[in-house]
This record gives sequence, structure tokens and C-alpha cells, in this order.
Amino acid sequence: MSNPEQLIKKENTLNPDNWLKEVRVFAPATVANMICGFDILGFAVEKPGDEVFMQQVEEVGVRIRSIKGDDGRLPLDPDKNTVSACVKMLLNHLGIENEIGVEIDLIKHMPIGSGLGSSSASTVAGLFAINALLGNPLTKNELMPFCVEGERLACGHGHADNVAPALMGGITLIRGYEPLDIISLPVPEDLVAGIVFPQVDVPTRDARQLIKEKVSLKDAVNQWGNIAGLVAGLYRSDYDLIGRSMHDVLIEPTRAILIPEFYEMKRIAMEAGALSFGISGSGPSVVAISKGAEAAQLAVNRIQEHLTANGIESLQFVSAVNAEGPKILS
Amino acid sequence: MSNPEQLIKKENTLNPDNWLKEVRVFAPATVANMICGFDILGFAVEKPGDEVFMQQVEEVGVRIRSIKGDDGRLPLDPDKNTVSACVKMLLNHLGIENEIGVEIDLIKHMPIGSGLGSSSASTVAGLFAINALLGNPLTKNELMPFCVEGERLACGHGHADNVAPALMGGITLIRGYEPLDIISLPVPEDLVAGIVFPQVDVPTRDARQLIKEKVSLKDAVNQWGNIAGLVAGLYRSDYDLIGRSMHDVLIEPTRAILIPEFYEMKRIAMEAGALSFGISGSGPSVVAISKGAEAAQLAVNRIQEHLTANGIESLQFVSAVNAEGPKILS
Repeated sequence: MSNPEQLIKKENTLNPDNWLKEVRVFAPATVANMICGFDILGFAVEKPGDEVFMQQVEEVGVRIRSIKGDDGRLPLDPDKNTVSACVKMLLNHLGIENEIGVEIDLIKHMPIGSGLGSSSASTVAGLFAINALLGNPLTKNELMPFCVEGERLACGHGHADNVAPALMGGITLIRGYEPLDIISLPVPEDLVAGIVFPQVDVPTRDARQLIKEKVSLKDAVNQWGNIAGLVAGLYRSDYDLIGRSMHDVLIEPTRAILIPEFYEMKRIAMEAGALSFGISGSGPSVVAISKGAEAAQLAVNRIQEHLTANGIESLQFVSAVNAEGPKILS
Repeated sequence: MSNPEQLIKKENTLNPDNWLKEVRVFAPATVANMICGFDILGFAVEKPGDEVFMQQVEEVGVRIRSIKGDDGRLPLDPDKNTVSACVKMLLNHLGIENEIGVEIDLIKHMPIGSGLGSSSASTVAGLFAINALLGNPLTKNELMPFCVEGERLACGHGHADNVAPALMGGITLIRGYEPLDIISLPVPEDLVAGIVFPQVDVPTRDARQLIKEKVSLKDAVNQWGNIAGLVAGLYRSDYDLIGRSMHDVLIEPTRAILIPEFYEMKRIAMEAGALSFGISGSGPSVVAISKGAEAAQLAVNRIQEHLTANGIESLQFVSAVNAEGPKILS
């Protein structure tokens, strides 16, 4: 991974005259793995996502003023909260941590522990916001290592498969980590994600620990045939190839154990016409990747009906791939 | 894998009036794996390759009349020789094994056991020739299962990573085997293979047996990041991305043991400007994949000098990717 310290400092662009008084930023939820691409693929969605409102204040330092939508689960301590900790890291990198005061309101519009990149969305929103406030001294590529570092703070693992699409938008491939090498893949126009979040708790750490450290070469070959097929399918806008490539023989069988009704939801989604169905990130959210919004909507409606009939509450989100990534709301 | 028997018989196209008296076919050598894509990727080259001359004769049955260039290593028995066995299999499938007599001259222009798909080139040449002789009753896609079956006869393993590019031409991805799903990938114009065959014997069966059945998930993730990067690089004609993606952390360390001077050849190739360097198929041939013929030629010249200085005889082939595959010579 690139060391944030290696990035060229752009102090000459850090003219306080260019700084904004305040900024409001949205950063999107993400579907990591894209079913067959464990730890290397992911895409951003239009909704849900998190919002950061950041304001310059007189008193030097970074503070969390409020957090909404977290049910009190996230820390307000600026060194422990991932958003403020990342903002501090960036200010420190730029050498202006003692020259500026910012206060942050974090508004979470998405559930924590859902497998939709909740911490990534907040981290990316925070870093995009402070960069915007400072007149954009860093490019998105330069912001990326800070986002990965934020993911390490939040999850204990410096993975980029949520922060990469959250920051870059679209569908991203992490080719490698040493150095961090992120490739934006093309987004076929009609690709729509139908997401259902069954409201059961599957912490990322536990979901990772279940995964075996060794896999059979045969399964690995099967998996990389599918990954290569998916990348080719995205370039060709070949929905049939995309669909038959999005199969996970390695991770899904283990993680599915933690998700109630997984195989029944899969059957329902495929019968409703989804191209593929699988786990979003480490779950428990599941995703019916579909051609067109109508097919995605049908799949999530039927899945929700099934969950409701089985006494499981759930949320649904139907969204095209979000090509833009984070955006400034005001 | 598709069962040859499942293919629709096209007996109505099997009109003896359309049959040719004789045909001469060339089928190309192939570089399986394309360094990072074990068992799923491969490409065809312009040279070397094998030649089949096939002639209709009065006496019903399939016979091998002569084999040149094999140093007496290949069987003349039509049931044991892969080329004639595949031709018989096709005639049987078409229901005309008792209606036609063919005699085959096989001219091997490439070394056996070189890791360049020698048996695949012969098999594909034979099957392409009998299909042409019969007025092309089968498409290339329909011929493919017979080619895979030929590979099983020759190597004990029904792999398609040599026969797929030998038959289809270009760069091929085997997305999956059940059913056989072959995707043609784009060929960047300046991609050139510099091949060196050190004349040491590494039978495919032995080379396969060395490979571990279990791999670490970490290495597998690294490998599929590279595979996805390579596919994206081919679509983008991004030679830099192609180069940094073509790394094999899983298979090469084991197979390289059987290839003399492997790491020294790699150092030489990379210093000569190759995009990447690795083993062709199961070796011992090695390939310096380069941008442009000049870079490829420089790499193979320097590698050959090094081998000669170390008392190892070798052959070299410099070739662009062969987009066409097999072709009729006369």
C-alpha cells in the first residue's frame, strides 16, 4: 500500500483564502466483492449513503459535533471516530493540523454492520469533505491511501474493496495492494443492484474469521475464470456473460451460513430474473444484480415478502451503479 | 464440458459431392496460461505450428501415412495417434465412419514436450482438416469439444487452454468447463511473444503433478487481481497494466524448479524491456511478452546468449498473436 507520507505535500495550494466556510458531502454505500471478486471488486450505488456536514470554526482541532442514525453506536471522541481520525490524519499530512478548526456532523443514512460499506461511506465522505473545504489540494487517487487507512481503523483490515468504489464511483478493481493499484471498470448502462438488508447482525470481523485460509486450486481456477469472465462481460456490456460469471464457489458457502434464508432468497431472485445473486461484502445484505430496475425491484420485493413471512425484518434499496462517487450537496 | 454427442448432427450438409479430394492445414502453437491465468488463458502465435495433409482415398477408414519432425516419438496406429483418433471420433459423430477413407500426413514443425501446445496444434490441425474436407459441417464452436477430447487423449487431462486459442485464434479465456464457455479477448496490436525453448525435457504430466492442490487464499486473491487486471488491460490496450498484471505467484515458483536458468532468464528479459516474462504452459519454454517485435527479439536474443554460455541448446520464436488460428494452406 502507498504510504500517505509519500504523497507530495501540496502546501502551496493550501491557501486559507481558498478554504470554504462549510461543506456538505454525500458518499455512497458500496457492494464489495461483486459476488465473484472477493477482496478485489466492488461498486458504488446511488443510495443509501452517508452524509458529512463540515464547518470551519475558530477553535483549532477536529471535533465530532453530532452523529445521527447510528443508534449511539459510534464514538464521539475525535481520535476514536474513524471520520475525525481520518480528517486529522489528512490535516497532519498537510502540516496544518494546528492551523484550522473543523466541526463535523455525521448523518448516517445507512445501517451499520450491513455489509454495504457503512464505515467506508462515512470515511470517504469525511475525507472528501475536508479536501473540498481546503480547495481540493489532493486528487482522488491521492486521497485513496487515507481512505484505506480509515478502513484499517474501522475494521482492523486495510481493505480497499469498499473505499475504492465509494471514492472513485462506478465499478472498481483492486489489481494489487503493493503498491495500491485501482482500475475503474466500465459500467454497463442497465446494470442495477437490488439490495436487501435482513436486519440481523453479522460483524465484518466474524465474517472474515470464518473464511478458510487455504482453498483448493481447482476452486481457485473456477473463481478466476469467473472473475475474468465478469471483467470481459463489463467491457462487452454482455449481460448474459456477466450473469454466468458472477458465481462464488469459495467464500459464499461459508458466509451464507450466517445469513438466514440465503439459499431461498437466491432461488427467489433467480426466478425473478436476476442475472446473479449473492452476498454484499461480508453480509448480511444480499444483492440481486439485474438487468434493468424493473427486474431488480421485482427480485427485492419477492425476497422481502419471503423474509417478512419468516418473521425477519429487512430494508431494501434498488439502485443503478453510481458512476460519480461522493458529491457535494451544498 | 459439452458432450460431442449433444451436438446437432448435420447429416444433410454431409453431401459427398461437397467433399474435397485433399486439404493441407496449419494450426498454431499456443502459449497457455498467459503467465497469470493458469488453466484459463492462452493465446495462439504465428509460428511455430503443425501441418496436416489429409487426402481422401478409396479404402474406408482413417490411417496415418507418415509423421515428420517427431523423431519417431508419435504412434502411427490410428487408434493411438491423437490426430487420427480425433478424426475417427468426428467421423463417428457424423455417422460416416464407414463411408469415407482418409490418409493423413502429419508434419510437426514444433518440438514435442516444449510447453507450446504441440499435441493441441496437431489435434486442431487434424480436426480442422477433416471438417474442411467434408465441406465444414461443424462450426469452430462445435469442433471445440472434439479438440478438448483430443487433449484428454494426449495428456490425460481435458484442458482447453491450448486447444481453445489454437482453434479460435487470438487470446482466449476459458470462463468455465461445465459447460465449456470460451470467450475471445481483444488482442492489442503491438503485443508480441518472444519464446525461447530450452531443449530440456519437462513432460506435462510431471509438471502438473508438482503443483499443490491447496493454495493460500491470500495468494489466490493476489492472482485473481492480476487476472482481472490483465483482462482489463487487453480491453484498454494498456500495455503498462498488462505488464504489471502478468505475474504468477502460485504456479511459477513450483514449475520454475524444472527450468534451468529460469530466474536469470527472467532478469534478462525484464532488463531487455519485456512487459512480463514467465513459463509457457507447463514449460520448459519461456515467454517474454513484449510491446513490439523489437523488444521481444532483443529479449530472446539475450536469453539465448545466456543459455548458450551455460551449455544449454535452445530454439527461439518471435511472433505476434495469431488472430486467425488454423488455416488452409492448399
